[in-house]
Amino acid sequence: MAVIDELLGANEVYARTFDRGDLPLPPARRVAIVTCMDARILPSKALGLREGDAHVIRNAGGRARDSLRSIIISQRLLGTRELAIIHHTDCGMLTFTNRDLREKVREDLGQDTGEFDFLPIQDLDESVRQDIEFLQATQLLNPDTLIRGFVYDVRTGKLREVSVGAGAETG
Amino acid sequence: MAVIDELLGANEVYARTFDRGDLPLPPARRVAIVTCMDARILPSKALGLREGDAHVIRNAGGRARDSLRSIIISQRLLGTRELAIIHHTDCGMLTFTNRDLREKVREDLGQDTGEFDFLPIQDLDESVRQDIEFLQATQLLNPDTLIRGFVYDVRTGKLREVSVGAGAETG
Repeated sequence: MAVIDELLGANEVYARTFDRGDLPLPPARRVAIVTCMDARILPSKALGLREGDAHVIRNAGGRARDSLRSIIISQRLLGTRELAIIHHTDCGMLTFTNRDLREKVREDLGQDTGEFDFLPIQDLDESVRQDIEFLQATQLLNPDTLIRGFVYDVRTGKLREVSVGAGAETG
Repeated sequence: MAVIDELLGANEVYARTFDRGDLPLPPARRVAIVTCMDARILPSKALGLREGDAHVIRNAGGRARDSLRSIIISQRLLGTRELAIIHHTDCGMLTFTNRDLREKVREDLGQDTGEFDFLPIQDLDESVRQDIEFLQATQLLNPDTLIRGFVYDVRTGKLREVSVGAGAETG
């Protein structure tokens, strides 16, 4: 059986007792979270989120550059006002360079990914700071967005805040 | 108190009883899920996922185009073999056009987003099919990836599979 069929089975169980069908579209707690797709991170459990609370944006590394479209939509159309960027220990993004991965795609699939930027990470605190700076520089967020950055430890389940200096607010 | 501080409080509680600190990096169930950032969707609960099970990629709409970097990394470096694309009812992406949102960014923030594509959705089944076709056309996925598409109903918590014809496998 495909794993997706197992997920469908779990979804049937979930739907049977589902009682959160009347929630509005905008996130109740007006916060958006950007984090990694990593399987070990369950944002709802790790951050105490219920259905309806927060936008959760996830991609390889939890990189802001790949989240910009979603963050603009989250703020302009759905009213979120705080933003947490969460990278994490033992991240796969620490294990390769763009050159490594382009080469692997060429070897495995015979495809040329050219200058495709896979946004690898060299240092976790630095990548969090870079992502916050990137977002501020775009000027596409609300000027008063509260942006904070964290590193999640997959061994302990704990968040550690990354110091970003006095410039943590946009604008 | 900022909402993010409340999330940090919830994280402390989570970490106190955390006992999943020994999991490997690659997802145990070798599946990647692409879905919307919508606050009403809790993938772990709705699909029965535990820490370590699956990659979860999320963005506004659950659009594949915005997920490609993450999917390539998920497959090439971390061995996932199945892929579920999950869009959902009452999605914010159904409520605007690119022109609407570019105009709103200009009005609210004074910024020109030019030809930025916010990837709005007109029809849910069609957007799921388009995203699967987009991924197949890239030739950047494993040729034998099992890709399936769904629409999640936020009123019932239920997944409904979208028919994509016989071409559901890449290659």
